[in-house]
Amino acid sequence: MTSAYASLCDLFQRLSRLEHLSAISGWDMYVMMSSKGSTARAEAMAELELEIQARLAAPRVAELLSAAEQESLDDDQRADLVEMKRRHAWTTALPPALVEAKSLAGARCEHAWRRQRPANDWTGFAANLREVVRLAREEASIRAELTGLGRYDALLDHYEPGMRAERLDPLFADLSSWLPELIERALERQARVAETSLEGSFDPEAQRRLGLEVMALLGFDFEAGRLDVSAHPFCGGVPSDVRITTRFDEGDFLPALMSVIHETGHARYEQNLPSRFHGRPIGLARSMGMHESQSLSFEMQLARSDAFLSLLQPMVSNHFGRRPGLDLEALARRVRRVAPGKIRVDADELCYPAHVMLRYQIERALIEGELEVDDIPAAWDERMLRYLGVDTRGDYRNGCMQDIHWTDGGFGYFPTYTLGAIYAAQLFAAARQALPGLDERIADGELGVLFGWLDANVWSHGSRYSTDELLRRATGAPVSTQAYRAHLERRYA
Amino acid sequence: MTSAYASLCDLFQRLSRLEHLSAISGWDMYVMMSSKGSTARAEAMAELELEIQARLAAPRVAELLSAAEQESLDDDQRADLVEMKRRHAWTTALPPALVEAKSLAGARCEHAWRRQRPANDWTGFAANLREVVRLAREEASIRAELTGLGRYDALLDHYEPGMRAERLDPLFADLSSWLPELIERALERQARVAETSLEGSFDPEAQRRLGLEVMALLGFDFEAGRLDVSAHPFCGGVPSDVRITTRFDEGDFLPALMSVIHETGHARYEQNLPSRFHGRPIGLARSMGMHESQSLSFEMQLARSDAFLSLLQPMVSNHFGRRPGLDLEALARRVRRVAPGKIRVDADELCYPAHVMLRYQIERALIEGELEVDDIPAAWDERMLRYLGVDTRGDYRNGCMQDIHWTDGGFGYFPTYTLGAIYAAQLFAAARQALPGLDERIADGELGVLFGWLDANVWSHGSRYSTDELLRRATGAPVSTQAYRAHLERRYA
Repeated sequence: MTSAYASLCDLFQRLSRLEHLSAISGWDMYVMMSSKGSTARAEAMAELELEIQARLAAPRVAELLSAAEQESLDDDQRADLVEMKRRHAWTTALPPALVEAKSLAGARCEHAWRRQRPANDWTGFAANLREVVRLAREEASIRAELTGLGRYDALLDHYEPGMRAERLDPLFADLSSWLPELIERALERQARVAETSLEGSFDPEAQRRLGLEVMALLGFDFEAGRLDVSAHPFCGGVPSDVRITTRFDEGDFLPALMSVIHETGHARYEQNLPSRFHGRPIGLARSMGMHESQSLSFEMQLARSDAFLSLLQPMVSNHFGRRPGLDLEALARRVRRVAPGKIRVDADELCYPAHVMLRYQIERALIEGELEVDDIPAAWDERMLRYLGVDTRGDYRNGCMQDIHWTDGGFGYFPTYTLGAIYAAQLFAAARQALPGLDERIADGELGVLFGWLDANVWSHGSRYSTDELLRRATGAPVSTQAYRAHLERRYA
Repeated sequence: MTSAYASLCDLFQRLSRLEHLSAISGWDMYVMMSSKGSTARAEAMAELELEIQARLAAPRVAELLSAAEQESLDDDQRADLVEMKRRHAWTTALPPALVEAKSLAGARCEHAWRRQRPANDWTGFAANLREVVRLAREEASIRAELTGLGRYDALLDHYEPGMRAERLDPLFADLSSWLPELIERALERQARVAETSLEGSFDPEAQRRLGLEVMALLGFDFEAGRLDVSAHPFCGGVPSDVRITTRFDEGDFLPALMSVIHETGHARYEQNLPSRFHGRPIGLARSMGMHESQSLSFEMQLARSDAFLSLLQPMVSNHFGRRPGLDLEALARRVRRVAPGKIRVDADELCYPAHVMLRYQIERALIEGELEVDDIPAAWDERMLRYLGVDTRGDYRNGCMQDIHWTDGGFGYFPTYTLGAIYAAQLFAAARQALPGLDERIADGELGVLFGWLDANVWSHGSRYSTDELLRRATGAPVSTQAYRAHLERRYA
């Protein structure tokens, strides 16, 4: 007789096959799709999503999950079962009417936002967002009831399993206690050195070749993935065929190059997930925060280090010739430039966490019912001024209307960006300790030693361990801002 | 209460959404997929196919199809129901064990063929093909039993609904009565004129730009499709987002250009299918032969005409400069060059039907049990010599092992290539009659008048009419080789 666990493995294997098609069609939508194809594509992807949900929601699945609990499973199988239950619980928690209402309200709000944001129309946007928030609160209450978690935690746990607001709060409180002053110090130091501006234009094709060269240096497996262009850089596809994208700015090669490095970090995590767990939940990446820790390990920890820049600079010169602003010193200054501004996605390494913290504080209060939609602009403006010294009053389009996340109810995601930065610093510090002379070896182009460490400590584990356990095994300590602060102070103070 | 027909529309609408994802993932497989992604992709596409089949095979569907028969439907709905029943019958006819055996034997034969063909290993290939043929005969018997058709007809009807061997035989008998002699006459005429050979190389990027320009001239809607590169040119995607491909040969721009024109013919049919029938079987293209008639109307009837060549030649010169072999006369000679050879996909317009007829005769006899696998080489060699004067003895790899079609049991498809050529000639002759001065208007770049006629007579009807009815409405006559012969004699004799 087939065990309940084996039946579940078959089910999830089949779901992962359908999700493969979602992933490829989703990538295609942003990279290849013709404009007139969008309606049919949205319908097709929704139909597949319905099928996936229906298979998970079948009564037999709940029975199998209970039965598997009683079976004799090894540690990996048990961890796999935990992930299966988490997935099942998330998918089946909400009444269909709420799912539909959420989907409609989210689509309406996002759709209108695309016009309202350029028009700076906060009033119009707020009207739609109120409905989205109302439904998100309803969702959070139901999920909290079912899981025994707090309302915001019940959403956060989907993106960052195991993370709780009561653990985030002290991390972010600590951060906000030293970050504004560190930004000020960095700005003062930066003001003492003149910046070399770039000259001429940067051929997109040369930028693409440089990107591919750097991906190769970073160990990207080109037999299991590719680089393309899209409006917003992302990492998509499936582990055996990871699709990363970038976009080229002819006036500056750095944004595309840094986004390629960032997405390559995501890609290597995916490409090196444990293939023995292929098609099972335990084989997936641990969390959004852990995923971001890999992209930021590449983009911030590695790529902006002196050691790596000494490798990178000759490649840059090779593609763009000898020009002002391309020498090592100017390059280092440019990748570490601090410039507080209104827009999160344009933020530098030092200012980025401020953007995230303020969003976390606002969305958490929204979900808990401590803040109303009408209160968002004031809360936003106050924090932007406090953390970054930036005045956003009245400029909704570059303030609280800039992100797409909230428009369709994606609450609980924002903190994972900064958790990723914190994990990355902690992991990198541990790697430096474990691998003597790491920076010298990086400068010599021996990057394999670093990737081997990341593979052994993060990539190869998939979802075997909780994030806490993974971090403790890799770094010997629970999550803390200590390494992150040390890293930022070393680099910017 | 929802009518049975309305329930069926909902079912087929949902199936078409899933098939959208099949189409895009299928395109991606040939154009974008990384090599290591192939196993997971094959599994994912198979899972989706299983889901589609399961939905069609649900007992309720047969009930709905019977019930809808009794409902009051208009002509279009009735035509739609006919297509639904055809699809349902095809999908549910075979016992699962036979489907699985076919799939395994086909995969094994095709997989081995990829090595056996280059090795000219007929004995090895024949061993696998015998099993494929055995299962195809079993399939044909079951389908014949269920449909009341002949065994070969029961397969042919899938690709070319309504076509029967007893109607194909006289068409092909007529063709074979005059074609060999026409080929001889063409070769004699051709021998009297020296050919200008091409010089230099043709930049793939310039070839691509020329291709895009010609696609625009041919009315391709770039908001509903795109051009990419693949090992074998094809037309894929969905009507709102048609994906055509080509491949570039640096030594000659003509193969890529002609394949772009061919695929653009397929693409315009797809892009102009009736959107009011979107997602219903009646909204699909009529048949494989009718589809091929559109690609051949573009590639053979239109693009190789004097009128069109006079439009095309300046575009060619524009991209590749003034070189030997690019003037109008040399271009015309090259696109109409006749060269009997062993390989079907390299065949010219005049020799192509000979390749198809011999395959039809062999595959029909195989399915009817009148020929065994071991008899194929002799049957092949005899016909190649008779039709084309080409000796293929012992050269299996360039003889009866050259095509992929039979390896996984695709019997009944080959005739549609030549049916397409016959339909194309008949349609084009009717268009010429209906549109006075058509060639002058083509030479003036007024192609819209031709496309308008094709749209009104073919594209916009989807599957409303049978192929016979469609042809009779468009040309006033049932299918016949008359226009095809006249066209070939005018061009080549």
